[in-house]
Amino acid sequence: MFVEIAQIDVKPGMEAEFEKGVAAAAPVFKRAKGCRGLSLHRSVEKPTRYRLYVDWDTVENHTVDFRGSADFQEWRKHVGHCFQETPYVEHTKQVNKWF
Amino acid sequence: MFVEIAQIDVKPGMEAEFEKGVAAAAPVFKRAKGCRGLSLHRSVEKPTRYRLYVDWDTVENHTVDFRGSADFQEWRKHVGHCFQETPYVEHTKQVNKWF
Repeated sequence: MFVEIAQIDVKPGMEAEFEKGVAAAAPVFKRAKGCRGLSLHRSVEKPTRYRLYVDWDTVENHTVDFRGSADFQEWRKHVGHCFQETPYVEHTKQVNKWF
Repeated sequence: MFVEIAQIDVKPGMEAEFEKGVAAAAPVFKRAKGCRGLSLHRSVEKPTRYRLYVDWDTVENHTVDFRGSADFQEWRKHVGHCFQETPYVEHTKQVNKWF
């Protein structure tokens, strides 16, 4: 399994709206092919910065299947207007979890 | 609970040694005050980049208690020589986990 990290800086004052938008868009991820998990974290040091963690069976489930689907536009409709800039996206793989 | 993200770029060729060093240092975190979880993820796009996720009861358990302890030096002894540069550290708090 791979974890997509989308680092998203939102416009100051849009934090609550962004969080509502992600919650509203959760079903979009839930039904996406190969999508296994969705969570949202907020930065302590920079409270306009969020990280959306999305678990995928393969990187292509995200980059090809999801981004190529109508649901990607649906996701952006919920939250895109809150973005300060284009999100920074990276994929990672767990090496180990000790405890 | 807070999640510390330490983004660590290691010197090319030091990946296996770094991973072994983190494994060896896991008990250091396990015994740290307020430390509740430890996992390591590796970037797909930039394979010399890792993210160490450490769960803490409070941010200060990390920034004051852990960094001020002898065990912080112990941790660095295991992995410090693998660092390409100073790790980038941020703390986050989970907003929600949908699935």
